[in-house]
Amino acid sequence: MTSVTENQLVGRSVARREDPRLLTGHGRFVDDIELPGMLHAQFVRSTVAHGLITAVDLTAVRRVPGVVAAFTAADLGLGDITARLDRPPAEFVPTAMPVLARDRVRYVGEPIAVVVARDPYAAEDGLEAARVTYESLPPVTCEEQALAPGAALVHEEAVRNTLVDVSLFATEGIDGIFENAPCVVRVEARTGRQNALPLETRGAVAQWDAREEQLVVHTCTQIPHQVRTVASRCLGLDERAVRVIVPDMGGGFGLKCVVGREEIAAAAAALRLRRPVKWIEDRKDALSASFLAREQHYTARAAFDADGRILGLDADVVCDMGAYSCYPFTAGIEPLMAAGEMPGVYKVPAYRVRGRAITTNKAPTAPYRGVSRPQYVMVVERLMERAARELDMDPLEIRRRNLITDFPYTGVNHITYDPGSYLESLDLCEQALKEAGWYDRQAAARAEGRHIGIGYSCFSERTGYGSAAFAARKMQVVPGFDLSEVRMDTGGAVTVTTGTMSHGQSHETTMAQIVADALGVDLAKVKLHQGDTDRITYGWGTFASRSITVGGSAVRRAAVKLGDKLRAIAAAEWGVPPEETELARGRVRRRDEPGIELTYEHLADIAYLKSHLLPEDIEPGLTATAAFDVTTDGTFSNATHGAVVELHEGTGQVEILAYVCVEDCGVAIHPQVVEGQCRGGIAQGIAGALFEQITYDAQGEPSATSFMDYKVPTAHEIPDVTIHHLETPCAFTETGAKGAGEGGTIGAPAAVLNAVNDALRATGVELDTTPITPETVHRALTSPALEQTR
Amino acid sequence: MTSVTENQLVGRSVARREDPRLLTGHGRFVDDIELPGMLHAQFVRSTVAHGLITAVDLTAVRRVPGVVAAFTAADLGLGDITARLDRPPAEFVPTAMPVLARDRVRYVGEPIAVVVARDPYAAEDGLEAARVTYESLPPVTCEEQALAPGAALVHEEAVRNTLVDVSLFATEGIDGIFENAPCVVRVEARTGRQNALPLETRGAVAQWDAREEQLVVHTCTQIPHQVRTVASRCLGLDERAVRVIVPDMGGGFGLKCVVGREEIAAAAAALRLRRPVKWIEDRKDALSASFLAREQHYTARAAFDADGRILGLDADVVCDMGAYSCYPFTAGIEPLMAAGEMPGVYKVPAYRVRGRAITTNKAPTAPYRGVSRPQYVMVVERLMERAARELDMDPLEIRRRNLITDFPYTGVNHITYDPGSYLESLDLCEQALKEAGWYDRQAAARAEGRHIGIGYSCFSERTGYGSAAFAARKMQVVPGFDLSEVRMDTGGAVTVTTGTMSHGQSHETTMAQIVADALGVDLAKVKLHQGDTDRITYGWGTFASRSITVGGSAVRRAAVKLGDKLRAIAAAEWGVPPEETELARGRVRRRDEPGIELTYEHLADIAYLKSHLLPEDIEPGLTATAAFDVTTDGTFSNATHGAVVELHEGTGQVEILAYVCVEDCGVAIHPQVVEGQCRGGIAQGIAGALFEQITYDAQGEPSATSFMDYKVPTAHEIPDVTIHHLETPCAFTETGAKGAGEGGTIGAPAAVLNAVNDALRATGVELDTTPITPETVHRALTSPALEQTR
Repeated sequence: MTSVTENQLVGRSVARREDPRLLTGHGRFVDDIELPGMLHAQFVRSTVAHGLITAVDLTAVRRVPGVVAAFTAADLGLGDITARLDRPPAEFVPTAMPVLARDRVRYVGEPIAVVVARDPYAAEDGLEAARVTYESLPPVTCEEQALAPGAALVHEEAVRNTLVDVSLFATEGIDGIFENAPCVVRVEARTGRQNALPLETRGAVAQWDAREEQLVVHTCTQIPHQVRTVASRCLGLDERAVRVIVPDMGGGFGLKCVVGREEIAAAAAALRLRRPVKWIEDRKDALSASFLAREQHYTARAAFDADGRILGLDADVVCDMGAYSCYPFTAGIEPLMAAGEMPGVYKVPAYRVRGRAITTNKAPTAPYRGVSRPQYVMVVERLMERAARELDMDPLEIRRRNLITDFPYTGVNHITYDPGSYLESLDLCEQALKEAGWYDRQAAARAEGRHIGIGYSCFSERTGYGSAAFAARKMQVVPGFDLSEVRMDTGGAVTVTTGTMSHGQSHETTMAQIVADALGVDLAKVKLHQGDTDRITYGWGTFASRSITVGGSAVRRAAVKLGDKLRAIAAAEWGVPPEETELARGRVRRRDEPGIELTYEHLADIAYLKSHLLPEDIEPGLTATAAFDVTTDGTFSNATHGAVVELHEGTGQVEILAYVCVEDCGVAIHPQVVEGQCRGGIAQGIAGALFEQITYDAQGEPSATSFMDYKVPTAHEIPDVTIHHLETPCAFTETGAKGAGEGGTIGAPAAVLNAVNDALRATGVELDTTPITPETVHRALTSPALEQTR
Repeated sequence: MTSVTENQLVGRSVARREDPRLLTGHGRFVDDIELPGMLHAQFVRSTVAHGLITAVDLTAVRRVPGVVAAFTAADLGLGDITARLDRPPAEFVPTAMPVLARDRVRYVGEPIAVVVARDPYAAEDGLEAARVTYESLPPVTCEEQALAPGAALVHEEAVRNTLVDVSLFATEGIDGIFENAPCVVRVEARTGRQNALPLETRGAVAQWDAREEQLVVHTCTQIPHQVRTVASRCLGLDERAVRVIVPDMGGGFGLKCVVGREEIAAAAAALRLRRPVKWIEDRKDALSASFLAREQHYTARAAFDADGRILGLDADVVCDMGAYSCYPFTAGIEPLMAAGEMPGVYKVPAYRVRGRAITTNKAPTAPYRGVSRPQYVMVVERLMERAARELDMDPLEIRRRNLITDFPYTGVNHITYDPGSYLESLDLCEQALKEAGWYDRQAAARAEGRHIGIGYSCFSERTGYGSAAFAARKMQVVPGFDLSEVRMDTGGAVTVTTGTMSHGQSHETTMAQIVADALGVDLAKVKLHQGDTDRITYGWGTFASRSITVGGSAVRRAAVKLGDKLRAIAAAEWGVPPEETELARGRVRRRDEPGIELTYEHLADIAYLKSHLLPEDIEPGLTATAAFDVTTDGTFSNATHGAVVELHEGTGQVEILAYVCVEDCGVAIHPQVVEGQCRGGIAQGIAGALFEQITYDAQGEPSATSFMDYKVPTAHEIPDVTIHHLETPCAFTETGAKGAGEGGTIGAPAAVLNAVNDALRATGVELDTTPITPETVHRALTSPALEQTR
């Protein structure tokens, strides 16, 4: 260590740097941006799920008072949004997503034309005046329709409705293993289509800056540099001629880590009109016409020996990706994530999986928090529970026999898992529920005929994806290094720039903690800049729980480099080797001579204003940049979740009585932030387990386009969550941290589902599909099996 | 060379990158900036030249409809603007310039309070309602008053009105040299107080950005980072909490390379009110209350041997710097420049100089284009002419005997001059005027009784100041490295960021030419960013003709580094050493194997999107940064100017019949831009020689506060200028270029004055003081001596 941290900030839940702004109403979200002469855009959207557009007549739109312009795809002549996947044609069919639908629409709500008006009301009035005529095509609204022989094609250029189809691993002899295994259990599970539902809907404000020859696009995105790439390609501009700026964001959860058609169309309108254009998505469009996620169908079986040890896992997953491949992840994101990582925390000697992405006439999908892991963890955990019942074992004991404990462990899926606390977290979680008396209370309640269940889930989550794993095809998502810059000004204040993009994860605090420790300065002296493509050459953005692992490591590296520069300048002043110096409390000091020190202000004065005093090999100024990439398979956060539920007979309601999360994300930079991530994630996981779902009718009309129909759990439905931390530091991130953003969501559905099944034990009914509706529970509780036990 | 420039841009007058924007009205100047909720500021200014403020009553101001706030110095509690000079107390007296006058005013027009209103008209109405009462003090309005024993003190804390007083060099035995010299000539010269007069007056738009915790100050300044420093110190903010952005600028000429009080006050008001505040200076304030320059008084003598060789130079210069030391240059800028560099292009074996800056109750001064050089060159050239007359020599022959020709030459002033074309430019200039027939025409005209004169000036100008020269105390202005960043995006387009700040010098074109050549890309692919303190760590700004020498060198270095990175990536792809590669036409190609090449797009794809393919020692992304500092005494541009004038008897008008400039700024990146600089500079030099002057009456009231009184020459008064280029490349700048921004202004006054004196030869009258008014000329032409010759 070259920096002596006398008052270490990493690991402490310091007051958040962003709170004074946000809590006093000084946050700036996209909709807060007002520019002189700004116009407002809204979109004419398809009213049919599948059809050919025979005419778009905007004549009346353009006559609506206040409407300034209305553009179709033909008017704007934009390139398509096309994501690629490095897979052979048999495995991946690329499809194009036009910015505005041209000759064909593929889902209800698909944007067809953009109306630009002096105010949002006139824009809405304009929409009503649009006349679009269609020639209907048969809608493809479910897996069965999509895969049926002779099915209508969602993408005419594709030869099938299966966009991704991979069969992986297929351990030799796996069929024999299943034939000879003492115990084989099966699960068929379906998970409902959800909306990630950030509090802030999508939106953008775009403006042509003639002086800088740049189209400046303020948009709420998790991936500013990738939006820049797509916008520049669709609009035919040099990439440098697009500047993406992201202000404060009210959540993203993956829905905003794909490029939206509307943000590109709004930018195109601003470019065409040479006037600022704002587009703010309303909640109806957000629910029905943005990006959805999670609709998957698993058919899985697992083989066990008589002692409950897993012999093999064989799974088939079909993911309904809706109408289009999203950018940059493609329709492959869900099936490839599930197929690649399904064995999870367990030692699985044999594995075979088929993963498919199908396209349907429903709103397209994006990688929502956890991406397939909430689903496959649920499936695997159901398999464990079922095997335990079959073998009459304790459901935790069977897990203990299978959990990976010898790290690093290279799995059947070719991934090397770094050390974690898989077993320890399970033990601690069980202990917590026991000590809180839930096992006793369950026994007592059962005696009273009440239906209380306790369920667990064990999982790990790969975070810190790097390009090495991608190169080795051990991962399926976009790879990513990250860049950072750390500057110190003449007064010793520090500016950090990162290519990651906080959308609620407190990066302004956590990144500042990392830098403040590395440089030995106060937290208040450090300010993070993010979300401006002009201020840092590149960043992959924030997704896949990568910001602190990758971005945070880049930031720490740059801070350490800057510290080294400060030490070198001081060492030159003293005429000693830099090794004899160290950083502390805003000063460089001599290691062995207490009291001899130089303040950063003094050193900055030399670096900037008296550069003639610098040694020849030190460049003037106080800036350091760094890159970080992950050269291993990534790092694995892990956790065990435990849920206690009670099922209410009369209503079929599932009440969550208690919830314990034992998580291990390595070094927690800011424990309260980690807990916030856990709690929010668990709420979203519970939402998927019990509440939220968007279904489509036979015409492809979505069922839930308002909060009247889309059932979002509130504080009333979400329990208090008890969180315990374990800390297995990551060996290769610069801070020892692992990613912490998604775990809550991953563990919750399985724990809740297992608890519900535990509560249903007496009924003989087992539920494997989410959301678990009151209707299902009510039906189970009134099943004949239950009657028999009474 | 690692880049093969098949179509070199440097040296060609390509179409300017900024012209499409500027010529179509899409430039963005400070006054073009409109922000929602923006308020408008104007300043209550002193009506007396010297006095104690006994009361400032803004009660009525705040009641004016539309006025939102009005602040005095006490209301805002701002720190002072204080520039420092590393000189002993006997040589330099630091003085503070308050942002708003507190208890004392020191010139008519000094800002006392800022009025902020909903529109500029209401702000002006507010000014009229302000009640300021003063206790008058005796105004100090000229050198004689300032230096008189018992003079009133402009700065009560200073013990005298002389802020800078240096005696330099004083070659041993210089008194003896003068006593024994065969020829000693004397000049006493005064130069008029001028205004640099950029077309665009000063202005600023400031806004507090709560999200970034930054005060964003849009201002038209040549020195954005230094404005940031001063603003942060005056306002008590971290330096990083101030962001200075400079949009397009309509000229600066030095007037905008000092920090203005009003831009700081407007920023303070925006910070206080948390609303955007705009201040735009009107022309009256610009003429009388901004920064002036050039009022100097020389008493000089030179000793020559009988052959016309200079034996010694002895000079005293007093510069009337007005009421305050400007930031960052201090009141020392003019006397120190004059004292340090006066020997100029001539071999001067003995030298003694005293330089003083005095303070008076007049508007403060800034370093106007050429800074003292127009004046001391005029003085030295008058001495040469006078000696030629005294010794009955040809005035060009006496110059030829004294010009430095053996480079590098270390002068009596301890400066080492790098190679230039001092003699060649004189020869060429004379030849041009001869070939154009002006000597013949002069002879013929004289025979007709017309008064035609031919005059020359020879000079060099130190450009490319670096910190080495500063460290060695061989220069007197602020030193300065410069930083640059060059990025390439995924499509091969290039963004260049520089710490210099074009205010009309075409940096967007010239810097792009340098980068385009270094990388082998089209000019249209290169875009320059400048004028944003957040986008580059530091920059000293644009002054002292340093942008291309220092900034341009930093830019070229970064471009070459980026090219090396592209070559390294390509070399790794090919498995060959980088030395076997070269850059050309947007590609890296194999030196020895024609046709084998990789496009930049391909290499960018690897650097950004396939970073796993990069060799381990190459960081992802395509960015390079570089610093450049000058480690020598600087580089010297040189020129000879020749003017032909005719004096009109009846009116005393001086008509310039012909003007030839032979300039050598080393490699001219864009000859047309250099010529533009020459022509504009010559116009400003002629303005000083013949037209512009601001005088003050005994009460300290300025004489010229509008264009009715301040006589700016127009196209009618400025002659066509013939320009010839010589090229002596600079050995240590990265492009071979020397600075070209100030030369025109430096050479013109001396050439015009010499021509006028040549025309007056028959009268026996010699004029050494500028501006040369028609009245003076008329008086000379009607002098008794002239009558005798008739």
